[in-house]
Order: sequence, then structure tokens, then C-alpha cells
Amino acid sequence: MAMAEFGFTLHATDGGARRGTVTTGRGDIATPAFMPVGTAGTVKGLYLDQVKGAGADIILGNTYHLMLRPGAERIDRLGGLHGFIGWDGPILTDSGGFQVMSLSALRQMSEKGVTFKSHVDGAIHEMSPERSIEIQGLLGSDIQMQLDECVALPTDAETMKAAMELSLRWAERCRVAFGEQPGKAMFGIVQGGDDEKLRVQSAEALKAMDLKGYSIGGLAVGEPQEVMLAMLDVVCPILPAHKPRYLMGVGTPQDLLRSVARGVDMFDCVMPTRSGRHGLAFTRRGRVNLKNARHAEDHRPLDDEMNCPASRTYSRAYLHHLIRSGEMLGMMLLSWHNTYYYQWLMAEMRRAIEQRRFADFSAETEAMWEAGDIAAL
Amino acid sequence: MAMAEFGFTLHATDGGARRGTVTTGRGDIATPAFMPVGTAGTVKGLYLDQVKGAGADIILGNTYHLMLRPGAERIDRLGGLHGFIGWDGPILTDSGGFQVMSLSALRQMSEKGVTFKSHVDGAIHEMSPERSIEIQGLLGSDIQMQLDECVALPTDAETMKAAMELSLRWAERCRVAFGEQPGKAMFGIVQGGDDEKLRVQSAEALKAMDLKGYSIGGLAVGEPQEVMLAMLDVVCPILPAHKPRYLMGVGTPQDLLRSVARGVDMFDCVMPTRSGRHGLAFTRRGRVNLKNARHAEDHRPLDDEMNCPASRTYSRAYLHHLIRSGEMLGMMLLSWHNTYYYQWLMAEMRRAIEQRRFADFSAETEAMWEAGDIAAL
Repeated sequence: MAMAEFGFTLHATDGGARRGTVTTGRGDIATPAFMPVGTAGTVKGLYLDQVKGAGADIILGNTYHLMLRPGAERIDRLGGLHGFIGWDGPILTDSGGFQVMSLSALRQMSEKGVTFKSHVDGAIHEMSPERSIEIQGLLGSDIQMQLDECVALPTDAETMKAAMELSLRWAERCRVAFGEQPGKAMFGIVQGGDDEKLRVQSAEALKAMDLKGYSIGGLAVGEPQEVMLAMLDVVCPILPAHKPRYLMGVGTPQDLLRSVARGVDMFDCVMPTRSGRHGLAFTRRGRVNLKNARHAEDHRPLDDEMNCPASRTYSRAYLHHLIRSGEMLGMMLLSWHNTYYYQWLMAEMRRAIEQRRFADFSAETEAMWEAGDIAAL
Repeated sequence: MAMAEFGFTLHATDGGARRGTVTTGRGDIATPAFMPVGTAGTVKGLYLDQVKGAGADIILGNTYHLMLRPGAERIDRLGGLHGFIGWDGPILTDSGGFQVMSLSALRQMSEKGVTFKSHVDGAIHEMSPERSIEIQGLLGSDIQMQLDECVALPTDAETMKAAMELSLRWAERCRVAFGEQPGKAMFGIVQGGDDEKLRVQSAEALKAMDLKGYSIGGLAVGEPQEVMLAMLDVVCPILPAHKPRYLMGVGTPQDLLRSVARGVDMFDCVMPTRSGRHGLAFTRRGRVNLKNARHAEDHRPLDDEMNCPASRTYSRAYLHHLIRSGEMLGMMLLSWHNTYYYQWLMAEMRRAIEQRRFADFSAETEAMWEAGDIAAL
């Protein structure tokens, strides 16, 4: 059987919300999809069997982390990221640009690319758009991202405009560097901060490049949710309906629900695992802080309607004890539960879109979050 | 069916080595047995399914940790330690005495008991022999330990003698406090440091109390291995053949092998999990430090003859990367592998005793450790 081509099929829409399938050479992705983040080659605190069992079709790897340690060429020699970590489904990688901004020291931008100092060992690295695509190829990434310039908000209009325009030129260079790769894709990234006009220019220019998918970057970086949603309202209608749309680094369950309503297909965020490590669970009834003393003698599970051992088998009292004691198992269980809950929420959204009841589903879901956790014992 | 009585059956001996079964109300324990340590209600970094799957019949809980957090009465209200953590096999608890010595501040000993300050919140606690047994009962422990006085080595002969004698008086008080509990047992603890005469006195006096089992304490606290083995050579022949013998807090794989040869039936130690968290694996070919650069591009697993995913599914290169990056998954996998290896080693020892080839097995095992790891790629 020939390798499947990269593609996107739209099965149903309901208002702005879209139910689709992204096809890759390594398997299909049911959308709307949430991609667990395997930062440095591991979804923190989880076995990949648990990630797959939770329902994830695709995971994400961070180019910045992996190029610094263990190194892209080394991963290539070890069978690519799929072989290295033991995941046979699709993998999406970012370009490294965002984390160069947020984690490295001594960043220097030029038309050619970015020079930065590793936060791991202080070594100086250069990354051009072409090198970013080369690295993502060495990693064996199925869905690759263009290199873009990410600027911290707030910033002045000129800086934002210049970064957006540089990102467009880099998108074209990445498109050429990527070429045609069976079963794989390279996405362009819409930039422009919180400036509607810049966002429109960015989206229109990328659309004209006829890329295989479109990411929306530079959001969920501290701005209010309504600013992010306003940008989606501007950008999504411009993007072609038959290409997948990926909102990078987002977000809370509510962010996901409201962004799907506006036409986003794919998401990634460290929130389920990072919050889990800090004792915070996301549930059908909103956020539950397991550090809270109210759970100390609560024999009930987090949510016995979730089909995940972490959610239904362990008591809140035990989770409370583990988190309070700083035990790894507490972090493992809450990361697992949260990963499961995020996948469950996406599956429910997909079903609601198929049934054309997404607005009702959203209202019910938000009301249940608002009503809050079960009463204390 | 009536609950099984606590008991010990000796199936075979080979030299000093013994192959037996400890029977408890919560299930049988094949001996020689290694008991993974669930310090604060969790075997660090492992799911209990993994502990059971590795072959462990019994795990250990630490009275000191659990009485301080979450508290013995609280655990009792939450279904005992078995219900709280989700383990339905036998559980052994220590008395708390050893960790009062090693972890708490402001320890004050008297005939009545010990007063100490919690390392968690600074609260003052009193623990008498009777309270230790009460706490272990609240935890629901199947095999309980007498409270003993543990003195740090080296110490003078008078201090050692006084501590040993106090421990004997406390053994009697614990025996009375424990009474008769169907399916459960309370073990006395042989003390006396590295003094053969004191060890003999302690063992003889405890034997006269006709307890259900005997622990050997105060060893593996920094003394050379030959001192520990010399004490076993003195103590084991005194202890009754039809009662189980438990060497507390021991040890390396070699410690286990050499102690089983001298007639020890049960062990516990944090070494498999603690070493695993620090990147050290115990294997059939000796110790393997996964931090070492030689593993950086080694695609081979730790040991593909071990029937454990952590040992056979993940490459050394990936384990090396995870440990170097401080990722939880690295600690989880090496703790799992080590726990599996320890259980595998005990099972092999049990088989060798049944086949009356324990001396040959020991020689082959030590030779293989000595020969060391597979050659670097």
C-alpha cells in the first residue's frame, strides 16, 4: 500500500466549528485535535501507552529542546524521533523560534536567521529557516513549522510589522527548503500580534503561498482571552476551508472550546501536564486543586465517569497526600488524568459537531465548569 | 473460607539458603523475598500494577512517614493502608524507630518510649512500643515490627548493650500489645550492632519469646559487608528454623545473594528505586550508569532478556537522554527496571534453592556481575 498523502478532509461543520480528518503518512488525526506536548522527547510523567490510550492521535516535539539535547543529527542516527521515543503515530514539531525567544540568551536576529546561546550548555547556535526545516527533517517530523520571528507582547507597531513581514519571507524560504515530502506537510504561521490589519496581511500572504496547513502563532502569550478570540475571528475566515488550522500553544479547556467554535482544528499546550505536576486537575466540573485540605479525607475519585484509571481508581485523599508529599506518583496521576480529560473534551466536541449541536454542547460544558466541583464531604 | 493463619513453611534448604512460603491473611509470600519500599504510601515512581507485575508479593510501608503525613488515624478512616494506596497483598511496616533516629530532630529516649520532632512540620510526637503497635494496626499492617532503639554506629559497647536490652524489653511490651491477630504477625528485632556477644544475647532472648518472625536490624548502616555477613553467621543459626527471618534495609544484589546463603528469608531496601532515580541500573551484568556518555548513541536496551518493558523496550540512548535531561520518565523507567531485576533475582534464587544448586548459582551470578556490562558500541 502506498503511503497516504498529507491532506485534510472536512466531514461536518456547525457554525464555525469544523469536524475533519488530517491524513498523514503515519496515520490519521481526528479534528478538532489536542496534541500532547513531548517537549524533550517525552510527554512529562506519562508512558506513551497512556498518551495513546487517552485518545491522542498525534504528539508534539520541541525542536529547540531536541536540537540542543540530544541533538538532531543524533536523533536521526537513532531512528528519528519516532524510533527514539517509541511513538509510531504522527509527530508535529515547532520550528524552534518560539523557544529561542523564551528560553535562550543572547538572541540576535537578522534576515538570514537567528543566532542564540543554548540554555543547556551555553553553546552558540545559528538557525536559519533552511536549518530549521533540515532539523525537523532529521527529527522525522510529519508536520513541520516554518521558522518565524516571535516578539514578546506588548511591543510597538513597527516592530510587530517588521517581525510579521520577516516571518512571511521566512515562510517562503521554508516552503522551498521543505519542497515536496510524501505524507508530510510544512505549515506557515500567521503572525501580527493583536493588530487586526497585520493579521489579515499575514493570513492573506500565507494563503497565497498555497501551503498544506496554517498555524496561528503569537497568541496565548499573556493577552486577555477576548483578544485571542478576536484575532481568530479575523484570521479563520481568511484561511482556506480545506486546509487544517492550528492554534499554537493553546490552552485552557475554555480556550479550546471557544477556539473550536471559531474554526480552529488543532491545538497543543503543556498545560495538562504542567498543571498536573502542580496538583491542578481539569475536570468536567472545572478546576480542582488537589492541594486543598478539603480533599484530605475525601475517598471519592476525581471523576468516576472518566474511563481513565487516574480519574476513577484513586481517591482524592490519596492524590492530595501524594501531591502534598511531593511524590512522583501524584504528578504522574494528575498529568495522566488531565491528558485524558483534554482528549475526552476533544472527542466530545467532535461528536457535538457531527450532531450539529456544538452551541448547545458549549453552553452545557461552560455551565458545568461554572457550577464547579462536587460538594465537599 | 476462613482467613489463612500467619505461618511459615520451609520447602527446601540448600546449605544455609532456605526456600519457603510466608502465609498471611492477605496472601502468600514466596521466600527468599525482596519487598519494594512504599515509603510514604507509594513505591516511588511506580504504579502498583508494575510492582505486582514485577513479581512482588509484599510491599513495605514506613510507619514514621505515614504517621506524620497523612497520619495513622486518617489512613484508618480511609480504609487502612491497603485501601488508601490500592494494594491488596500483604504489607509489612517498620516500627518507626529507625527513621525517628535518622530523620527527626530532638530525639529523646526513655524507658517509656521516644519523643521526637517531626521533620515535616516540627510537631512533637511521642511513641511508645504500645503506640507503635497501635499505629501499625491503624495502618492495617500484616507484618508489624516491634519498636526498637537504633543507635548510630560506631558507638561504645555500653550504649550498644543498653539499646539492645531496652529493645528486648520493648519487644515484650510489643508482644503483649499486639496480642493475637488472625493472619497477622509481629516480629522481634535482633539488635547488638557489630558485637557478636550482644547479637547472641538478643537472638536468644527473642527466641525465648516465641515470636512469629524475627528481624535482624541495625545492619547495612555503613559497616563493611563482611561485618554484616559475620553477624548473620552468628544470628541465623540461633533463630528457629520454622520462623521467617527478615534482614532490614538490605541491600545491594550481592548483599541479597550472600545473605540468602546464610539463611535470610526477607529483605527490603530503597536502593532499586533511589538508584533508579539517579540513573543507576542493576543488571545481570552488574551496575550500569546511564549517565555515562558511552550510552548516548547505544540503540540497545538495558537487557532484552528481562521480561519488563523498561528493560527491553527502551534504548540505552533514550534512557541516557531522559536521565541527563532530568525527565521523570527516566526515573520511572529505571526504578521499574531495577524493581523488576530485584524480583527476577529473588525468583532465580528461589529456583536455585529448589534445585539445590544455590552455590553454583551464586558463583555464576557473581562472575557475571564481575565480568560487567556488554561492550560499548
